[in-house]
Amino acid sequence: MDLQLLKPDAGHDGPMYLQLYRRYRNAIAQGQLAPGDRVPSVRSLASALNLARGTVELAYQMLTSEGYFVARGAAGTIVSPRITGLPGAGEPKAAREAPPAMPSRDTAPGDILPFQLGLPALDAFPRKTWARLTGRCLRTLDTAAMLYPHPAGYEPLRRAIATYLGVSRGISCSHEQVFVTGGYRGALDLVCRTLLQPGDLGWYEDPGYVHARHHLLNAGMRLAPIPVDDEGMNVAVGLRVAADARFAVVTPTHQSPTGVALSLPRRLELLEWAKARGAWIIEDDYDSEFRYHGRPLPALKSLDAGGRVLYTGTFSKVLFPGLRLAYLVAPSALVERLNLALNHVPGPGSILPQAMVAEFMEQGHFARHLRKMRTLYATRRGYLVDALERVMGDRLYVQPQAGGIHVLAYLPQEHGDRALAAAAAAAGLAVGALSDWYMHNAERGGLLMGFANFVSAGWTDDATMRLQVVLERSRSSTRATS
Amino acid sequence: MDLQLLKPDAGHDGPMYLQLYRRYRNAIAQGQLAPGDRVPSVRSLASALNLARGTVELAYQMLTSEGYFVARGAAGTIVSPRITGLPGAGEPKAAREAPPAMPSRDTAPGDILPFQLGLPALDAFPRKTWARLTGRCLRTLDTAAMLYPHPAGYEPLRRAIATYLGVSRGISCSHEQVFVTGGYRGALDLVCRTLLQPGDLGWYEDPGYVHARHHLLNAGMRLAPIPVDDEGMNVAVGLRVAADARFAVVTPTHQSPTGVALSLPRRLELLEWAKARGAWIIEDDYDSEFRYHGRPLPALKSLDAGGRVLYTGTFSKVLFPGLRLAYLVAPSALVERLNLALNHVPGPGSILPQAMVAEFMEQGHFARHLRKMRTLYATRRGYLVDALERVMGDRLYVQPQAGGIHVLAYLPQEHGDRALAAAAAAAGLAVGALSDWYMHNAERGGLLMGFANFVSAGWTDDATMRLQVVLERSRSSTRATS
Repeated sequence: MDLQLLKPDAGHDGPMYLQLYRRYRNAIAQGQLAPGDRVPSVRSLASALNLARGTVELAYQMLTSEGYFVARGAAGTIVSPRITGLPGAGEPKAAREAPPAMPSRDTAPGDILPFQLGLPALDAFPRKTWARLTGRCLRTLDTAAMLYPHPAGYEPLRRAIATYLGVSRGISCSHEQVFVTGGYRGALDLVCRTLLQPGDLGWYEDPGYVHARHHLLNAGMRLAPIPVDDEGMNVAVGLRVAADARFAVVTPTHQSPTGVALSLPRRLELLEWAKARGAWIIEDDYDSEFRYHGRPLPALKSLDAGGRVLYTGTFSKVLFPGLRLAYLVAPSALVERLNLALNHVPGPGSILPQAMVAEFMEQGHFARHLRKMRTLYATRRGYLVDALERVMGDRLYVQPQAGGIHVLAYLPQEHGDRALAAAAAAAGLAVGALSDWYMHNAERGGLLMGFANFVSAGWTDDATMRLQVVLERSRSSTRATS
Repeated sequence: MDLQLLKPDAGHDGPMYLQLYRRYRNAIAQGQLAPGDRVPSVRSLASALNLARGTVELAYQMLTSEGYFVARGAAGTIVSPRITGLPGAGEPKAAREAPPAMPSRDTAPGDILPFQLGLPALDAFPRKTWARLTGRCLRTLDTAAMLYPHPAGYEPLRRAIATYLGVSRGISCSHEQVFVTGGYRGALDLVCRTLLQPGDLGWYEDPGYVHARHHLLNAGMRLAPIPVDDEGMNVAVGLRVAADARFAVVTPTHQSPTGVALSLPRRLELLEWAKARGAWIIEDDYDSEFRYHGRPLPALKSLDAGGRVLYTGTFSKVLFPGLRLAYLVAPSALVERLNLALNHVPGPGSILPQAMVAEFMEQGHFARHLRKMRTLYATRRGYLVDALERVMGDRLYVQPQAGGIHVLAYLPQEHGDRALAAAAAAAGLAVGALSDWYMHNAERGGLLMGFANFVSAGWTDDATMRLQVVLERSRSSTRATS
């Protein structure tokens, strides 16, 4: 083939190596390069196209790691002979490796889109182990799994959660304080029905987790937006504007969505306020397991001498959301009251999934999976942050948060993040708009981007370049109208 | 052994054959008869003890069918050589065949006690088929089962339910009208949150399903007790005392707990009232599948031209309660409203159990299981009704209801059913008191007795005789104090 066809275009979008990578992929997809064909060496191509050798090297590495190229040492590099069902020209190979889309008969909540928030790495879940445990659970559970289950959850799971929280989150609790619920929503529901009254006022982080906010408002609660800065929720503001609140909802480990940790002085102030006022603190510890530098902070609950913290955790981020399993850890003084309320809530569902999680935890698979995911997410976060920096440059400012499974990137002020997220959605990209997470007007727009399902650097780059096109278009249209 | 030891005592409780059966069992348990021992022929024992030959024959049949005896044709009948771990003298062999008790680490909702209400026959559930389907579901579901599930339920299950209701209950609906919920409680919860307001008044059958009543009251509803007679809920009384109610809860197929069917004229009156007043009818069709004579009546929903009936069904009675799966079929005009509300309820839980039920239905196992259970329950109901008539005679009047998985037996008026149920509970017997199902004072006490887990006539007789002892004691103490 004519090597000049591969030549990146300096005026074209995106870095040289990425253009080269894509041109090679297109050439393969369109048959200009056949399986088994030898490709030029890095050195000769760099010289032929007048490119830096590093640029060509990077593109070759990506193509090799994704299986397009096979390096054969001194014999040179060839197009993989195993490429058969070629993906379309515009579609990176990684897309084929990505988790399959939901089958068409259940499409509603849908396909996994690039940047989708709130999903763990579905390709990395140990499905075989899971299937094997299920078989065992079905054999051993027997009649126990057929009776009306305990509405607080399957006891072995409650015990496994209590043990895990002791080891990992510094929370000392008995299994009787653990209530298994149908997702985080089930936990909030239980708190609202048991401890709160419609009309009760609560502190809510601003910005804060948008879905829980809607749930609480729907349950009749009033929410006082409390600003978040780089020490987390600003407790002093809460004390000033709504000292008489009945509850506070916080994400102290990685504030949702900014990722900052609630500082120790503020934790102590918050606990003191709750104790003095008899208020409840709902601690949402949704993704504390994923932290990539520094030590994970112990849960706020671990400091709760006054028995005011209702701790919630979920299996949606550490296992998978389809389980619909979360849990609430209540102060022991509340256990009886919650048990009574359980007679009137739907509860956490079938025993089987609960038994499977219990078994998964008891046998050490859970701890192993978390360790692996921590490494994997650090890598995938790296893909995204690198791609954003390379492709977007200073058009986005990536918040250097320490953990979680999404990245928050601030926009220059003139950009409306909601319009941008809508435009991205139209292009098949599931970025979130920071403004949606605010109750007050956001000071600065931002984009929330999940990275857990970016299975390769190539795919991440590709998605980021698509996002860049959306950003660019929206900027031109803003310019055109202003 | 001395045959006279086997001789029934005419002054003793219970029929002769049952006494003979129990004496044999005791003799085996206490070692007076050893495995392999030959027992007298029916004819010679009848003659030795001066009993009717039919009496001895019946006892021998029971002992043979339960594995105590082995008939060897011309060689006579022997005590089974395979009896090894002998049950205690008072414990029939059938008790060992009964479903195993819940393991001790999850005891709260507990053991299956004789007469326990609301449980299907757990020994007869096709567990192997179920386990096989689970394996297949796990292999095929894949990523779909890992994502956030649709809050209205797994679509293939919604479709399977819609098909089933069309065929079996005369209900024509699309899958979009079917909402899978976490048990009947989840369905009630959805209705309360969507269509009702705290303080709303509803008609409630008196007597009526006690757990749903508590749930509705807890949700802030007001309930007008509407008497039930042999045509079901007395709609004319409803119209007289609470024509302005916002809703009515009915069990039209087998009224819970009396078992009577709501007559056609009343069905039409009820529908007309709901249409004229814009009220909602919640139809609880909890065990319509089990009917032992006559044809099952179509659901009230099948007559609902005005779109006022919210139909609910549950898998707790037809599969098993540990699934925690039920469903609501809404008039199509309500579908959008319910879908919006779903964003704020915990939903039906994990996809896996839903997918298993869908598969079970699609492959015809569900229809097959229901057919088998209809026959089995007719047999087991027969065990209980026979035992009650033989052991209790006219001390209990068995309501001749056409369906369901429990028997209602009225007491002579002087008996307090609540005290009796409490005394029975102390003796390990889980009978329910009819008075608990009344909002007004019950006209007449009664006992509610589940029969689904009576795996043999012997076990049923045994439990019934234990109940008889409780009844007898309570009668003497009533006499002593009055």
